[in-house]
Parts: sequence; C-alpha cells; structure tokens
Amino acid sequence: MTLHTGRHFLQIPGPTNVPDRVLRAMDMPTLDHRGPEFAVLGHAVLSGVQRIFRTKQPVIIYPSSGTGAWEAAIVNTLSPGDKVLMAETGQFAMLWLGIADKFKLDVDMLSTDWRRGAPLDQIEARLKADRDHTIKAVMVVHNETSTSCVTHPLEVRKILDRTKHPALLVVDTISGLASLEYEHDAWGIDVSIAGSQKGMMLPPGLGFNAVSEKALAASKASTSMRSYWDWHEMIAINKQGTFPYTPATNLLYALKEAITMLEEEGLENVWARHRRHGAATRAAAKAWDLDLVCQDPHAYSPALTAIMVPDGHDADAFRKVVLENFDMSLGTGLGKIKGKAFRIGHLGHFNDLMLMGTLAGVEMGLDLAKVPHRAGGVMAAMDVLKGREEVLKMPKAAVA
Amino acid sequence: MTLHTGRHFLQIPGPTNVPDRVLRAMDMPTLDHRGPEFAVLGHAVLSGVQRIFRTKQPVIIYPSSGTGAWEAAIVNTLSPGDKVLMAETGQFAMLWLGIADKFKLDVDMLSTDWRRGAPLDQIEARLKADRDHTIKAVMVVHNETSTSCVTHPLEVRKILDRTKHPALLVVDTISGLASLEYEHDAWGIDVSIAGSQKGMMLPPGLGFNAVSEKALAASKASTSMRSYWDWHEMIAINKQGTFPYTPATNLLYALKEAITMLEEEGLENVWARHRRHGAATRAAAKAWDLDLVCQDPHAYSPALTAIMVPDGHDADAFRKVVLENFDMSLGTGLGKIKGKAFRIGHLGHFNDLMLMGTLAGVEMGLDLAKVPHRAGGVMAAMDVLKGREEVLKMPKAAVA
Amino acid sequence: MTLHTGRHFLQIPGPTNVPDRVLRAMDMPTLDHRGPEFAVLGHAVLSGVQRIFRTKQPVIIYPSSGTGAWEAAIVNTLSPGDKVLMAETGQFAMLWLGIADKFKLDVDMLSTDWRRGAPLDQIEARLKADRDHTIKAVMVVHNETSTSCVTHPLEVRKILDRTKHPALLVVDTISGLASLEYEHDAWGIDVSIAGSQKGMMLPPGLGFNAVSEKALAASKASTSMRSYWDWHEMIAINKQGTFPYTPATNLLYALKEAITMLEEEGLENVWARHRRHGAATRAAAKAWDLDLVCQDPHAYSPALTAIMVPDGHDADAFRKVVLENFDMSLGTGLGKIKGKAFRIGHLGHFNDLMLMGTLAGVEMGLDLAKVPHRAGGVMAAMDVLKGREEVLKMPKAAVA
Amino acid sequence: MTLHTGRHFLQIPGPTNVPDRVLRAMDMPTLDHRGPEFAVLGHAVLSGVQRIFRTKQPVIIYPSSGTGAWEAAIVNTLSPGDKVLMAETGQFAMLWLGIADKFKLDVDMLSTDWRRGAPLDQIEARLKADRDHTIKAVMVVHNETSTSCVTHPLEVRKILDRTKHPALLVVDTISGLASLEYEHDAWGIDVSIAGSQKGMMLPPGLGFNAVSEKALAASKASTSMRSYWDWHEMIAINKQGTFPYTPATNLLYALKEAITMLEEEGLENVWARHRRHGAATRAAAKAWDLDLVCQDPHAYSPALTAIMVPDGHDADAFRKVVLENFDMSLGTGLGKIKGKAFRIGHLGHFNDLMLMGTLAGVEMGLDLAKVPHRAGGVMAAMDVLKGREEVLKMPKAAVA
Repeated sequence: MTLHTGRHFLQIPGPTNVPDRVLRAMDMPTLDHRGPEFAVLGHAVLSGVQRIFRTKQPVIIYPSSGTGAWEAAIVNTLSPGDKVLMAETGQFAMLWLGIADKFKLDVDMLSTDWRRGAPLDQIEARLKADRDHTIKAVMVVHNETSTSCVTHPLEVRKILDRTKHPALLVVDTISGLASLEYEHDAWGIDVSIAGSQKGMMLPPGLGFNAVSEKALAASKASTSMRSYWDWHEMIAINKQGTFPYTPATNLLYALKEAITMLEEEGLENVWARHRRHGAATRAAAKAWDLDLVCQDPHAYSPALTAIMVPDGHDADAFRKVVLENFDMSLGTGLGKIKGKAFRIGHLGHFNDLMLMGTLAGVEMGLDLAKVPHRAGGVMAAMDVLKGREEVLKMPKAAVA
Repeated sequence: MTLHTGRHFLQIPGPTNVPDRVLRAMDMPTLDHRGPEFAVLGHAVLSGVQRIFRTKQPVIIYPSSGTGAWEAAIVNTLSPGDKVLMAETGQFAMLWLGIADKFKLDVDMLSTDWRRGAPLDQIEARLKADRDHTIKAVMVVHNETSTSCVTHPLEVRKILDRTKHPALLVVDTISGLASLEYEHDAWGIDVSIAGSQKGMMLPPGLGFNAVSEKALAASKASTSMRSYWDWHEMIAINKQGTFPYTPATNLLYALKEAITMLEEEGLENVWARHRRHGAATRAAAKAWDLDLVCQDPHAYSPALTAIMVPDGHDADAFRKVVLENFDMSLGTGLGKIKGKAFRIGHLGHFNDLMLMGTLAGVEMGLDLAKVPHRAGGVMAAMDVLKGREEVLKMPKAAVA
Repeated sequence: MTLHTGRHFLQIPGPTNVPDRVLRAMDMPTLDHRGPEFAVLGHAVLSGVQRIFRTKQPVIIYPSSGTGAWEAAIVNTLSPGDKVLMAETGQFAMLWLGIADKFKLDVDMLSTDWRRGAPLDQIEARLKADRDHTIKAVMVVHNETSTSCVTHPLEVRKILDRTKHPALLVVDTISGLASLEYEHDAWGIDVSIAGSQKGMMLPPGLGFNAVSEKALAASKASTSMRSYWDWHEMIAINKQGTFPYTPATNLLYALKEAITMLEEEGLENVWARHRRHGAATRAAAKAWDLDLVCQDPHAYSPALTAIMVPDGHDADAFRKVVLENFDMSLGTGLGKIKGKAFRIGHLGHFNDLMLMGTLAGVEMGLDLAKVPHRAGGVMAAMDVLKGREEVLKMPKAAVA
Repeated sequence: MTLHTGRHFLQIPGPTNVPDRVLRAMDMPTLDHRGPEFAVLGHAVLSGVQRIFRTKQPVIIYPSSGTGAWEAAIVNTLSPGDKVLMAETGQFAMLWLGIADKFKLDVDMLSTDWRRGAPLDQIEARLKADRDHTIKAVMVVHNETSTSCVTHPLEVRKILDRTKHPALLVVDTISGLASLEYEHDAWGIDVSIAGSQKGMMLPPGLGFNAVSEKALAASKASTSMRSYWDWHEMIAINKQGTFPYTPATNLLYALKEAITMLEEEGLENVWARHRRHGAATRAAAKAWDLDLVCQDPHAYSPALTAIMVPDGHDADAFRKVVLENFDMSLGTGLGKIKGKAFRIGHLGHFNDLMLMGTLAGVEMGLDLAKVPHRAGGVMAAMDVLKGREEVLKMPKAAVA
C-alpha cells in the first residue's frame, strides 16, 4: 500500500473526492437484488436521480463507466447511417465521436479551437439548412472536461426551437451533473448522459441516461443492435424497484447516500459552491499570469479549470513535481493540449480550504518546476473566497 | 434502514456474502486512474485475475454485470448471422440466448429437461455433422445457476478435439469461477466469462472475459459493432496497468483483496470447500426426501443446490416464510421451474457453520410453510461435515 | 491477517458480534470534542443510554473496560474500611471482590456453589441482623457471565425494602444490560455497572455507571481517592454534552448507532429475543444430555449458557476442536470450573440462524472431540425456534 | 448527521485527523480477546509501541484517555504524601497537578509565565537543595499542548544526572509521542505517558505508560490503592499477548495499522515532517505580525502552534468565524490564555497541502473576524515549504 502522510489531494476533474459517508454507505453487505429490502433501495435511488437530473421522466442506471452511458445514448436512439451534428469542443467530444463512428453514424463534426463551447451559430446554420430534417440528433458536451468550457444546453434547445428542428438533443453532462445548473425537463433535453464519479461524489462504476418521451419513441425505431444498454427492459423492470440484470448494489447504496447529501446541501447551493470555487481558481490563474484554456467567460466551467503553461514548458513535468512534492493529482492536458495545459478539478465533495490547499500546491509546484509565473494566486483566491459574494452567476439572462 | 437483529443470511447463489476484508478494501478514497499509484493496482489485479482463471492470456475487466461480459464475448468474436451451438441447460442459458438473438446470431439451441448438463452426445453429433465448419462457436454454461447442474468444459473441449472442429469454445463460468475447478488454458477455453459477485466474493459491478489467442484472432474478423466491449483497446492499454476508460476503481481495490484471500486459502482448497458444502447440502436434501433439480450426479454443482418442492406446494411461498421468519434470502426458481424449486447458494465467502445456519433455516422453514418433508436434513449435513473427508471429488477420471 | 473462509462465529459471552452498522458508524473521522457538532452527539448518547438503563438519573460513560466501571462504582460510593455484602456467584463476582479488596473494603462474601444466583435468604438474614446499618452496600452480579446464572436485582431490592436497610444496591449488569430485562429506576438500583461489548453490541472500550441520587449523596461522603472515575465533574460537564477529558469519540458514534438499533427493535423485543435463544440453547443441552452449570431454572440466563462436560473430559480441548474445525470461539470455563465447562454466548447482535450455526458447531465439535453426548441438540433447538412462542418469560410473578 | 460539503479540517492539537487506513483497520469484527488470533495482535502492538517509545522496557496500554495514563503514572509509582517537583508550563501541567492533588502528593509546583518550557535552572536548584532526596519524582510535560512550548526531557535527565538525584523522571509526552523526537530508553525516562489521539493518529481511547525498571521497583513500594491502573498484573499477562481485562480490541487493530504507517514513513521522517510544519506555521504567524505564545525558540513545538490575538480581540470569536465559514476546528486558548490565544494543530496524519488549507483558513478568518494582522502568512509558509530544507532541527547540540 502506498504511504500517504496526510490525505492525498485528488484534484483531477474526476474521479473526485468521495465523502466518507458515501464510502461507508457502500461498505455494507450486499443484498438480494430480487428481495423486498432491495426494492426499497431501488425505488429510492431511481426517484432520487430523477430529482438530481430535474426530471420526472425515466433515468436509467447502468453498471458502467460514463463511456458506457455515451454508447447507450447512441445505440438506443440512433441507427447506423443516421446523420448527427456534434461539435469538437475538446477531447471528450472527440472520444464520443469515436463511439459514434464505431456505430456507423454519419457525424457532422463542427470544429472549434478547443477554447470555447460549441459554435452555436454554426449549429443554428446547420439546422436551418437541414430542411429535410436529415439530422437526427444534436449531441453536445455540457461541461467539456478537457478544456473547462461549458456549452449551455438551454441555448442549444432554443436553437432547435427557433429552427423548429425535430432532432433529438443529446447532452453529455458527465462532469456537469450535480456541479453545474442542469434541468433535464425544463431545458427540453432528450437524452442526458452522466456518470457517478464527478459531481455525484461516488466512485466510478455507474452510468446514467435520463431520457425524454421523444427519445423513447426514437428508441423504438432504432435498428442498432443492443442488449445490455437497452432502455426498454430496464424501464419496465425498474417499475418494481429492481433491474433486469444484477445491479452494482453497493454503488447504489453509495448513490442513495450521495443524493441525500446533495439534497441536504440543496442543489442550488451545490451549484453556487461550484461557481464560487471556479471564480476563485480563475482569480488565482489570473494572478499567476497564466492563460486559461477557456477564452470565453460565458463558457467558464464551475467544475474545473484548465490552465495553459507558457510555451516551452511541459505541463506534465509540472504535474509530476506537484504529485511527488505535494501528493496532489492534477488533471493532465488531453489530446491536442497534451503537455500544454493542466487541469484543476474543484468539483464534487469540496470546500474552501481544500481548494486553498490545492491552489497552494499549484503555486508551490509552479515555483519548484520553474514554470514562469507571478506569485500571488493563492492570495487572489483568498480575496474571492473572503468576499463571500455570489460570484459568477450562471448567465441566465443571456440565454433567456 | 432495515433492521437486522443479527446478520442476514444471503444464501442466494450470488451476489454472495462479501468478506469484511473485501468491503473494507473497497472503502478507501478513489485514486487518479491515470497516476502511478493506480498502475501498481492495475498490474496487480490484471495479473491476479489471470491466476484465478488459470491463464497466461489476457483477461478483460469491465465495469459491468456478468450480463455485460456475456455480450462482450459475443460482440468481440462473432458477427451477425454466425452460426453457434448452445444448450438450453436452464434459465441462464436462455438469457444468454436472448443476447445472441439480439446480436442476430444463428443459434442452434440443444434442448434439455433443465435437470442435467449440456447434452454432450448431441454436441458431438452436431459438430461431427458440421463438415463445413459453419458452427463458429460452442457456447456452454459451466455452472447453470438456475438448476445447479454443471457442464464440464473439459468434456466439451475433448469433443471439439475429437471432432477436429475449429469452433471457438465459449464458456460462461459466472457462477463457477473461484468456486468450481476451472482451467482456462489447460482446458483450451477460448472465451471464459465471469462476474465479480459469486465465487470472487465481490459486490456486483465487474465483468470478466478471459480470451485465447484464437479468440483474439476471431475478434479481428468480427463485424459486430462495438466500442465499450472491445477487447483490443483494452488489452493494449492494460499493458500499462491502466484502462481506456475510467475503471470501477474501488471495485478493483476489492478485487485485489479478494484475490489475496483466494490465494491465501489456495484455489484447490477453495474448490474442495465448495465440493464439501455441496455434498452436505445434498445430504440434507436427501434426508428431507426432497428431489434435487439436478438428476445427474456427475453434474452436481459444488456452488449451489436447487431443490424441488413437492407438487402442489409453492417454492416462493416457502422462501417468503424463510425470509420473514429467519432473515435468510434463498434463490427463487427461475423460468420453467418458477415456484417449483428453490435454490441454496453455498458459494463464495462461506464456511461450515454458515452452511448449518442456512440448512437449519431451510428445515425450519419447510416446517413452518408446511412443505411435506422428513426432518433430519440438518443432522445428515452434520454427518457429512464431521466426516471431514474429501467428498465428491471432481470426476476427473470420467473426463480424462 | 488470519484467513477466515466465511465469518468467524464469535460465541463467547462478550465481546459479541458487532453489527456492521455500528462498526461503520465508528469508522468516521474523529470530531473536535469541544465543538458544537460533538455536543449534539454527546447529548444524544447521554440521553440514549439513560433510556437503555431505564433511568432518568445520570449515566456516566467512561473510556474504559467494564472492569473500570466496577472500580468507579466502588471508589465513588465507598471508603476504605466500609463493610459491604457480596455473593460469590462465580468468577466475575470473585474478580469484583479482588477490586473491593484492593480498595480495602471489608467484604462479607456469601458463598454459593457457582450454580445459582446470589443466596437471597442469606442476604436477607445478614441485612436483618445488621441493626446498626454497618453494611454500606449490597453488591450483586445481575448476569454472572461465568456460570450463566442470574440474580434478579428486583428481588434484592425487595429484601432491602423489607428489612428497611439503607445500604446501597450496586448491580453489575455488564453482561445483562440490553440482553436481560433491566430497570434502573423502577427497581431502585443505586449504581448500575455496564460495559459496551455485550448486549450493547459495541466493541470493548466503554464502561458505564448509572447512579441514583442516593449514590450521588454517598459519593460526597466517600473518602476514596479518585480522579478519572470521579462522577461529579463528569456529571457537571456532561450537562453541556461534553466530557471533562477526551472521550472515546469514535466509540460514541458506535454507541449512538447501537442505541438506534436497540430502539428500532424495541428493548422489550430485545429481551424476548434473548430469552428465546436461551431456551433453545438449553433445549439443545438437554438433548445432548449435558448438565447446565446453572441448576436453578429461575436463574437461567437469557444471554449465555454455560454447559458442563462429563467428568474426565476437558472442556478446553473441546473448545480447541471447535475453533480449529469450525472457526467458532466459545467461552472457556473460568475459575473453579476451568476445564469442566464451556460457555455459549447468545447475546448481542444475534438471530436464529446464527444460533443454529453455533449449536451445530457445538454438536459437531462434541462428536469430533469425543465428548460423550447424545445427538439431537440441534433438532431440539429447532423445535423451540419453530414454536415461535414466547418462551421462558422472566418470572415476574415470582418476584412481585 | 451534520453536512460537510468537503472534508472538515480538524486542526485542534488532538484528536487529530485519523488516516483512512487506521479507521478501516478499526472497522473489523471484534475478536475473542482470549484466543490465539488475538495473541498475535497483542504481541504485535505491544512490541510495536515499544519501538515508537524507543524502549525495550514494558509499555502498558490502557483502555482510557491520556488523563487515565497520567493517573496511572501517579498511582503506580507514588504514595500519598510523597513530594514531587512539577512545573506550571501551562494548562495541562495544571490539570496534571489537579490529579496529583487528588492523590495527595505534596507538589512543589514551579511557576512560569506559560510562554516557555519548564524552568530548568529552578529544577536544578531544587534538586541540588534536596540533599535528603525527599523529592520522589520530577514530572514534566514534554509538549505543553496549551502553549506549544517544549520541555526537552533529555535536559531534565542531565540535571538529575548532574545532581546525582534519584528522583524518578516522569514525562507526559501525550502530544509529543510520534510527533517530536522521543527516546524513552536513551533519555533515561522512568515513566513516559502518552495517548492515542495525537501523533499516534488514532481515535481517542487508549492511554500508554512506558516504564523503566526503576519505576517498576518504585511501584512495588507505592501504597496508593489501585486496580485498573496497576502495572504488574498487566505486564505479567501481556507476556502472553493478552490483557488482564477486556482490551479495546478494535482500537488495538487501529494501533497496529498506525504503527505500520509510522514505520513505513520512518520515525525520524515523522519527526522531521512535524518540525517542517512547525517552521512553516511560525513563518505564517510572523508574517501576520501576531505573537506566538511560546517566546523561547528553543522551546518551539513542532506539533502545534499557539498564537496570541491582539489585545481587545477575542480568540474564540475568531475561532467561531473560522468554524462557521471554513468548517475548520482550531484549538481554543486554555486556562489563563482563554480568549487571548488560539492553537493550530499540525500533528499526526498531515501534509503540506493540508497545512496550507489550514493556514489559508486562519488568514481568511483573521480578516473576516477583523483581527488586526498583516496579510501574507500563507505566502510566507509557502516559502518555507518550497524550500524543502530541513528546518529547525531539534537542537541536539544544545542539550549534549
């Protein structure tokens, strides 16, 4: 067993720090998944996740990673050859594209410079131009974990409404759910995709699909072969609080406790806490005179912050210094910003002093790794946190 | 939380009783799955599961149920339209058939009366007759959990060898692995399918595929669309001790500890312990004058025992009496023996006194539920356990 | 770490099997014992233990063993040279005497044959004869754990009342509390002594004193030197939910959860459950044709059963056989019945099937160790448990 | 249950943050404390604590608080009326005096201003003057937790040697052990007193006495009445790896794991880590322009730092602001510095980023509570931590 002389700082943007209450809930004897005690649990978690997604429609819980939930969204609603619209907002959009390719979708991939959200104007143009409605789905990543840029799903919904386009709106909110404001029903999302190991504060091992009636209807028409991921049997059997195949029972215990904790705090407060920590972290980056990967303030992520290192410096060498000197894991740059950026996760079970330890580790690491920067990031973050004001509200007006 | 005034007896044939050491290992902070500490864990579990499957070839670990591992075996090695030979040994064979159907395999399903293993003579006949080698795979369930009948994989291997048939040998050992003798390499298995929640003594949430070189070669030819289940990227990345997508980290901690425990006991001792408990349970059933579902002594399962209730009696009503009076979960009769049989799981983390508590609960429950039976099952089981002899050795001679 | 291939059966009469819920409650970060969050816990456990002792008077919680709680009762209420009346009901009475001797009490020790409760007639005679009220305390063991004989505290109370004797009534209910009916206030007990690791279902590490106003008054007169055990500072500071010195915080978490579980079950049901298991165990012993240590049915303990082995046989050799063959710990014979008796604990977190596993282990062990006995104990116990009647009610009438 | 949206920062100087490994080790079923599996544990922890105290002589482990270990040291070695020399270095020295008074020792209490270690010159003067050797013991607090001033035990030993005085040297190292350099044998300590909840990284509930042969000899002469605390029966029975009364078994599991962790790190490294964190914290205090309680650099504590708030400001109001805004518990000022000082614990399971989170919480709290200070403490601490030099070595030369 590796020795940690104090707590490891797990500040990658997921998996996140799991609360003791959640770990301990998971650490209980496994139940008969077909017995009455389980059914109580099953009903509790199925209705609980609905409240987290802000939906009254079905939510599917898979024993899987988030990757599996991506695949599930595709194979349930689309058929080989279907045309879909995606946006290359970063590495996770690229990975999702990879799955779409494997299931032979015809993807129209809108490009970006990986430093902002999806290009809404191009989406609108494409949808307007698609008079025949050949585009079956618009698939966007809510919180692109590789760049810390947000694409606001409601803005995409409004485009679909404006253009009166019937395409499904499929949203990956894997690192968004329970960190960023999210409204599956109110925002008219057809499939919301999430996982357990981010804002949900659980270990990895559960994938989620929240689905609309329209998505369910589409799934009946889909010719993609599927069994494990199939929604219909799942939804049918979930009505009894049980599952068609053995669920990851102990992770469901954990899910129940995590939902309890999120509701004790209040989802709005959870969202505000993440905004606050995003603002403090960006203040630190600014003081360090380091560029954010995300160049659009409207797209700043409350869940994590990706930061560029100056040219000629290796972000991964810096991360190694931080890990070895301060026992903190930071997120690596992914894809085309590999080595050029690092990422600070500030999502999930987190608070001000954990953030300050995190930022101090970054600031000391920059120094030890001789990455050019100004001192003072930690001070700047404290100024934000002391302010206690509600910083950087989600710009609702902008999308109204 | 449900009150248990003492430990619940979880005697379904999986999920099984998870050892405290395994639960506690799982109950630790989640790691960065891309960091060096994780890689040590990754290598440890990947090589550990190889030892459990008795293979030097790759073993894939999925965040999934066993159902997912079934699907993975199919979509990696076979293509829509491929002909396969299966045997309807019970409900789990039927469920696996359901998946094969969804992926459009052309299944030749050999029937049985659900009271014995796969019909080896018919398998041999089919393979002999298949001069053109249109059969791409023979798919059998090692330990049919619905009937407690074993199909010995080595016997199937010998048929393939005798008939010089190149079909893949695909074995579901979900409830067999780490309970029944199993030799992936020595028995020439091409794909072995397993899950975490049976003999492996883990909570549900991990699926396994152990694969041969021949299976890997077949997977290159398969046209089935797949991403999550794809072996190749998994095997490539596993070489670094890591995974292509976020693994179920905390279940991997649990897996490491479970492998440690299995190896502390010694796999041969684990197998002998299960044989011993199978013999004691069958002695009890005989004393009760109740029929076993399995009618072939060569096929008796060491992992669980399915028992018929007399005509006119409802096995599920009996199970309910046992649950309500003695806080013990027994397995229900599945499929065509629903209501006619119940199942006693005696696999996983288990010992003599847990078995005696279990059998006493059954005997008292039979009485309270007014199921006709003779008393004395508990006494008969004690006679076996006191004997301490190595009972019911796996009939190696028979298959040699 | 020792390998257990299934759960160890911990059937000594304490420490007892700790519920998972209690262990997991204990497994949480330690709190600031002077902060507001702790005070909530402090108030909860202090009022909770009052409900378990059935008292509205103070209960002291020590970080100590039950031995410490014995000593606390003495040094708070008595002074060197004080005369007290005790009864040698078994080994624990003898150990308590040892403490009384060390604190220089003048003990009048009534003898017994260790096979029944305290000699009430002699107690009455002594008190009657003590016209000058030189006897300052009558000290009895409620549930003598070495013999499984009960002395009913209410019967002693009635003697004190009948004889109008002002001596304090001090009761060791270490292995009685939360297993046997107990009423600190209604029975007029002055000091009740208990520990965490028996019916309270906790790990060892907490000692308890429940005290009456009369005991508190006596403590003001006591000249025994004391600090750690002193009641007064404890009671004063407990009013704020805190403790004069650092409490065993994590055991208090466990205590809170254990009290919750006892109250979910209902104390009366807890007592009935223990009576039921006592009756079943005695039925087994009778069927085995083995003598109980306790020869007075009125004194049979619901919490444990001590059983004699036939002359010429060694109870500890038998216990070793059971431990090595069946991974079960039974209680040894203590003091003058060392080697002649063994003890079966059936108290705490326990249920019918755990009892049946236990009794099967005893019956098989008797056989393997060649201790002369008749078979059938397990069957006899099942007959009792199946009956489901309320067996062996505490003989309230007898003491009314 | 109180909601913590992230980990609570427990920065009182004990109880300290318990490592997950230690909590999880504790969270295992209780064992038969008289069985062979326990004996292995017993021997392991008894020899393990010897290595931590750096002694080959007996170490007693009590189910108690540190307060109990204080009392144990007194009642084993001294008798009512015995003269002892103590020094009022702070509140814990005063509390210990309170116990000495209750056991009727004749204490010569040397006074200090609570801002330095024990007055060595006065100790030397008293011992020199005591020609008749009426002083039976010199009792000092190694790490005075109320003031963060250290009295170096070796310096006291040298005085006793220089003056050829036979008094016992009794050292309270409750908050020193496993944080500060400590050598029971090499420094010639007669009784070392410690507890579980500080540098040992355990929950509270265990007290320790390490004893010399001379102390054991003294204990034979002591007339203090004692039972629970008596060393002799404990030492005798410990030889079998067991205890005379039920030990706090689960805390012993925790102790075993904590010793493993301390030895994985290496005790010298543990000490250096604490020195380093002490230096960083004092650098922060200096930058804040706040006075340390401890005014003698030779006495600075590596385990905690007590800091004065300016006149007219309330340290406890500040602590409340920190707790409510940042979920961090700081230590209160005790005794005569109540309200005038607060204490930062940096001992036990701790690392650089936990310290930085802690200091950031203090700096932000000072601001929010309007305590006059300069900004920059956090920056100053980072400068120390980045330096990575071995700061503030224990001044061995000075005491040589």
